[in-house]
Amino acid sequence: MKQMAEEVKNWLLEAGEVIKARLQNPLIVETKSSRTDLVTNVDKETETFIVSKIRQAYPTDQILGEEGLGDVVTSTAGRLWIIDPIDGTLNFVKQHENFCIMVAFFEEGIGKLGFIYDVMRSEFYWGGKDLGVYQGTSKLPAIPDVALADGLVGMNAYMYRANQCKGQEIANASSGVRMIGCAGIEFIQLLRGNQVAYLSYLAPWDYAAGIVLAQELGLISSQLSGAPLSLLKKELFVCATPATYANIQQITS
Amino acid sequence: MKQMAEEVKNWLLEAGEVIKARLQNPLIVETKSSRTDLVTNVDKETETFIVSKIRQAYPTDQILGEEGLGDVVTSTAGRLWIIDPIDGTLNFVKQHENFCIMVAFFEEGIGKLGFIYDVMRSEFYWGGKDLGVYQGTSKLPAIPDVALADGLVGMNAYMYRANQCKGQEIANASSGVRMIGCAGIEFIQLLRGNQVAYLSYLAPWDYAAGIVLAQELGLISSQLSGAPLSLLKKELFVCATPATYANIQQITS
Repeated sequence: MKQMAEEVKNWLLEAGEVIKARLQNPLIVETKSSRTDLVTNVDKETETFIVSKIRQAYPTDQILGEEGLGDVVTSTAGRLWIIDPIDGTLNFVKQHENFCIMVAFFEEGIGKLGFIYDVMRSEFYWGGKDLGVYQGTSKLPAIPDVALADGLVGMNAYMYRANQCKGQEIANASSGVRMIGCAGIEFIQLLRGNQVAYLSYLAPWDYAAGIVLAQELGLISSQLSGAPLSLLKKELFVCATPATYANIQQITS
Repeated sequence: MKQMAEEVKNWLLEAGEVIKARLQNPLIVETKSSRTDLVTNVDKETETFIVSKIRQAYPTDQILGEEGLGDVVTSTAGRLWIIDPIDGTLNFVKQHENFCIMVAFFEEGIGKLGFIYDVMRSEFYWGGKDLGVYQGTSKLPAIPDVALADGLVGMNAYMYRANQCKGQEIANASSGVRMIGCAGIEFIQLLRGNQVAYLSYLAPWDYAAGIVLAQELGLISSQLSGAPLSLLKKELFVCATPATYANIQQITS
């Protein structure tokens, strides 16, 4: 598994260099479901590159990619890769930073490897089940089990504004709310102990890598209802320290 | 003025080294107006250090500091320094990053110099009237005049949640809302062209350095009502590109 991790890291470092080069030229931007749901030529090119690397190395594995350039995945049985080629595309387009590449590897629904690469900051978080979690070559410590009242919370804008699932009560019970616009960087904040929870409405590629790394460092991830995540469809999502997770369940139940 | 800028930069670099050293030990944290309005021993030590440097170099100048270790300032006449020793204290305490040191220098109410130092990222933004704006030694370009619909907006949580001054309408008319919890980093996002507006309820030390740098790169700052900023008390604040500023005035008027 560690050898496989090294292989994936090399793919993503190579993809990151191409992304940086592409940012020297104008991006080709298209809208998807709304005027703020964007995709660029670079999202597609990056997904194509990662899918081709997986196909070469592991031709029989299933691949679920945000841009739909992998397989149509309807089950988590067997070996499954989940790819977000550019997570935080709106930031990518408007800021040319604050975006990530994310890749996860699951076997029979169990998260084995996760990779979150903040390309422009050259920060690479990776690891997996029983491997530990690393930033570059530095192993990260277990995350202190801080309660909601004592920590910052990442939340999506709609959940906060509309008080969806008591988002406002959760934010008010915390030390403060933060919005970054990139699930990968929200997970990085969790892994660094900068935030005690992240709540949003996420597709599998938004959370797959993050939950593998978060679990290895002692955090809990689930649907906001407490039900397990499906890895197959968009769901209301929470990842938190155990103490904060219990605080949130108390507020939402 | 350029020589004075070099002098201030050296003070802040020295202060930054002390702050990094202090983070190796537990912080002494006290609350101010509420459980999330914090001050630490390091805020006070840093303000004391900067005030002492100004007193030595410019003994007759007025100094307005967040922690009240300068003067009681009731007028912007003459030479005035405005200091935020640690902007984003909640981030400083909870994250040990995503905070800034900010210093500004005004003469007869006119902003002459501004300094924003993101200590943990080693990013130093500085400059002033007719000097240009620099990140380290690189001169920043003028900021493109992007409209609200095409850009991201930084906003404080309360303004968004409570729809204060139509904060929700402003956010909805933009490409998206972001919350960082540090005015200095919000201004850095503006200076880098990552955001087209920043709206909040700010004290003079939260915005003094930022508005000097923002103006030099073509942005407009004022109270949300359109009235000039006082530099003396807390006010509803907006800084934006000219096009976005006009869009926001149209929504709030």
